[in-house]
Amino acid sequence: MKNNWLEHLKEKLKTDQYSSSESERYRHSHDESSHHAVEPEVVCFPESKEDIQAILETARTFGIPVTPFGAGSGLEGQAIPVKGGISLDFERMNQVLKFSPEDMQITVQPGITRKQLNKLINRQGLYFPIDPGADASIGGMAATNASGTTAVRYGTMRDQITDMEVVLADGTIIHTGSKAKKSSSGYHLTGLFTGSEGTLGIITEITLKLHGIPEHVIAASCTFSTPRECAEAAHMILLSGIPILRMEFVDALSISQVNTYGNYGIPERHSLFFEFAGMKKAAEEEAVLAEELLTGLGAENWKVAVDAEERSLIWKARHEMSYAFRHLKGTKVTGGDVCVPISKLPDLIDYARELIEESALVGGILGHIGDGNFHTLIVFDSESPAQQEAAELVNEKLAFRAIELGGTCTGEHGVGIGKRKFQQTEHGAAVSVMKNMKQLLDPENLLNPDKIFE
Amino acid sequence: MKNNWLEHLKEKLKTDQYSSSESERYRHSHDESSHHAVEPEVVCFPESKEDIQAILETARTFGIPVTPFGAGSGLEGQAIPVKGGISLDFERMNQVLKFSPEDMQITVQPGITRKQLNKLINRQGLYFPIDPGADASIGGMAATNASGTTAVRYGTMRDQITDMEVVLADGTIIHTGSKAKKSSSGYHLTGLFTGSEGTLGIITEITLKLHGIPEHVIAASCTFSTPRECAEAAHMILLSGIPILRMEFVDALSISQVNTYGNYGIPERHSLFFEFAGMKKAAEEEAVLAEELLTGLGAENWKVAVDAEERSLIWKARHEMSYAFRHLKGTKVTGGDVCVPISKLPDLIDYARELIEESALVGGILGHIGDGNFHTLIVFDSESPAQQEAAELVNEKLAFRAIELGGTCTGEHGVGIGKRKFQQTEHGAAVSVMKNMKQLLDPENLLNPDKIFE
Ligand SMILES: Cc1cc2nc3c(=O)[nH]c(=O)nc-3n(C[C@H](O)[C@H](O)[C@H](O)COP(=O)(O)OP(=O)(O)OC[C@H]3O[C@@H](n4cnc5c(N)ncnc54)[C@H](O)[C@@H]3O)c2cc1C
Ligand SMILES: Cc1cc2nc3c(=O)[nH]c(=O)nc-3n(C[C@H](O)[C@H](O)[C@H](O)COP(=O)(O)OP(=O)(O)OC[C@H]3O[C@@H](n4cnc5c(N)ncnc54)[C@H](O)[C@@H]3O)c2cc1C
Repeated sequence: MKNNWLEHLKEKLKTDQYSSSESERYRHSHDESSHHAVEPEVVCFPESKEDIQAILETARTFGIPVTPFGAGSGLEGQAIPVKGGISLDFERMNQVLKFSPEDMQITVQPGITRKQLNKLINRQGLYFPIDPGADASIGGMAATNASGTTAVRYGTMRDQITDMEVVLADGTIIHTGSKAKKSSSGYHLTGLFTGSEGTLGIITEITLKLHGIPEHVIAASCTFSTPRECAEAAHMILLSGIPILRMEFVDALSISQVNTYGNYGIPERHSLFFEFAGMKKAAEEEAVLAEELLTGLGAENWKVAVDAEERSLIWKARHEMSYAFRHLKGTKVTGGDVCVPISKLPDLIDYARELIEESALVGGILGHIGDGNFHTLIVFDSESPAQQEAAELVNEKLAFRAIELGGTCTGEHGVGIGKRKFQQTEHGAAVSVMKNMKQLLDPENLLNPDKIFE
Repeated sequence: MKNNWLEHLKEKLKTDQYSSSESERYRHSHDESSHHAVEPEVVCFPESKEDIQAILETARTFGIPVTPFGAGSGLEGQAIPVKGGISLDFERMNQVLKFSPEDMQITVQPGITRKQLNKLINRQGLYFPIDPGADASIGGMAATNASGTTAVRYGTMRDQITDMEVVLADGTIIHTGSKAKKSSSGYHLTGLFTGSEGTLGIITEITLKLHGIPEHVIAASCTFSTPRECAEAAHMILLSGIPILRMEFVDALSISQVNTYGNYGIPERHSLFFEFAGMKKAAEEEAVLAEELLTGLGAENWKVAVDAEERSLIWKARHEMSYAFRHLKGTKVTGGDVCVPISKLPDLIDYARELIEESALVGGILGHIGDGNFHTLIVFDSESPAQQEAAELVNEKLAFRAIELGGTCTGEHGVGIGKRKFQQTEHGAAVSVMKNMKQLLDPENLLNPDKIFE
């Protein structure tokens, strides 16, 4: 049977479009999470939606699972082919299909990465602001509803997509929306497929809203004595209505970690990082008002960076935080991704700190505090099951507490493998509705099986 | 059989919770559209989700259709119970369940109207910006994915909702999301139920994001010689990155109509109306930049209104536009709601003008031009089927052209009855997916039957 399906598959593709080499199977067996790696039997490199239809035909005929693979930067094992079968790598589907600067819109294939995309559009004065720390693929970002430091202004991937082309499990090709900026026509399939982690269909085209590069940008940072003070100050900034582009929290331990990693020399205290952006006078006014408000709340070390180099250094450091925890030999990192109403943040961050201390492991806290979203990054010895368990217990307790507070177990990373256990508690009776939708769109459970639901 | 189901229903409700009086049946037979009125057999006034569960139980037992009714301000006949049965009126479910100013969030019952809501929250410095011209209910606005003059900054209803409680056809109660500002957990049911026009479930609770009332607001307007010039100027404003709060287009004919209606004395030329809002200096800078840009493009009659009274007069006029067309005795109004990528607007507006002239009817054009969304308002003699047909032909041609251009037949009003005929052309193969979802969630087709799909 097995050779059978591989033969069936190979007949439809060019010989360089599939590989069962050890290196490709290894490369597609894991993502950036600490979840158990599983190798696919074959990796396919589709070049068109027709290739994908053909691959799905084999999958249906022989009951072979298909797991899409973007840049493999996921943090919940979403791209791991836990049931083997086919890994679908989009690296050859990375073209811009239509760039319409006049409509501030672009249609791309899923394999293009966010940095490649920005390189192409920046010269037109436009940018695509969603920025997970990694250079993720747009397809992967759509599939996980990714966001990042700019969500506080622009929202998440879901808010940026007006249309997707999707190949369904049965080979049907649909468009989920249109090129209009808003629509009240039909059911909102765009929102449904965004964040579905490859379990409902294969995304082959994505139309994104683009944004004008702000005329003027001011970066700033300040420090406080405790994480709680940072959270309270962030809350005050939001209530004040000062329109920030970015507002990030990083605790002292994480800063010392990134200083060691990148030699940044940033003050090793609990810190808030800001970006104010827009018309020149507006951004300047905002920065001044923020400084007044923050120093009134006891902020220290207020520092402003206007020139591009200094600014990008700060944000490079922020984006490297997560890698800074990952670079230690023999260790792994696991992390939570809770998101709660902003008023609950101070308590929840205190609770996270307590849990990390109880676990006796090294762990930092940082996050997109303006959205009520933060991450724990907990380092454990990859050879010690006890340490791994202790690290996971922190995430688990934190996730359940976040749900209790009306929040979510995952603000941006998605469910994948690691957050399946929270779905019933978070979504209750809605889980059956979700499972029915999966059943409706993928009755044979071929598309990324065993993700999101247990 | 019929008495049977009414008896069954009445046993579960208090006697003042249902009515088959002529006046109630009439009131619930129509909305603000020109679609054919149909009376329900009974109107129910639920006071809780348990009441709704009870009503749905009768509906299931006897196969009786149930059509939710908000404020009845819909423009596509969505609330018309075309198959008779039960009209579900939410006027008694209009409470605030939880107001969290500290999280800029509120949870309400669906029957509260947008003006009632704003009255309650404005004193805390917060507002809910989505503003369809009518004082619609929040439930109706969620069910149609309404938007309005502020969508260009804040997006649509869908972007404002983080959670809904929904009673499904089988009586199950689910929550579609959480109280977190963003989430990547589970499938995005919130987006799916928003805009589903009561066909997938009955909304009993809605959690909304609120926004700070801008510190400073400047209203402004200017005129051009042609609608095309207005559209081109609006496009330039968007590309310039000047962050507007509102940008509306109103053609000369519509202005003369509203002048007659409300004695406003506005210059009767093709006009753009703006609002700039934020920190004081920022708003001022934006207004000055916009003026420079617009006068460079040939704008005339640039006028700025800062004081609240003058400002609200302008926006009152804008919100009355639609009523201004409706006040003529013996006439009815029908209107399109197309939305296209912004670069296609100038041509499409020209085309709309042509079509209206061909039809030899009186008709205006106005709309939320910053979103690429505009309305035609065409007046016809309510006794003349030929005129009605001619008016509808304008909408039809315009909708098909908009879809051809990559846009949508409805930017904000929804599908209801009048835009069912465009669904197949706009959504193609996705229509089957949508119909399957309807079938999944409402297998007996009890919830607002015959809407959205033919
Ligand atoms: C250092 C670091 C920092 C990070 N910071 C953030 C952050 O700030 N915010 C954030 O949201 N995430 C963050 N992430 C997580 C990760 O970058 C995101 O989850 C990203 O969206 C994954 O994209 P990818 O292309 O790597 O997808 P992959 O990991 O390859 O796959 C992710 C999921 O998408 C599916 N998929 C991929 N392509 C398709 C397609 N064409 N059709 C259907 N399904 C598809 C896969 O099957 C899988 O389920 C970070 C990761 C790292 C390593
Ligand atoms: C003068 C005028 C100007 C307008 N301007 C705009 C505009 O700028 N933008 C815009 O978007 N619209 C506009 N509209 C249209 C209308 O106001 C919107 O469609 C509004 O959202 C309808 O809300 P409603 O409460 O009146 O709902 P209704 O008309 O009563 O019902 C609309 C739909 O919602 C469903 N529904 C109501 N409550 C529930 C519930 N609790 N659960 C499930 N389904 C429910 C109904 O079944 C129906 O399908 C305008 C209308 C008028 C008359």
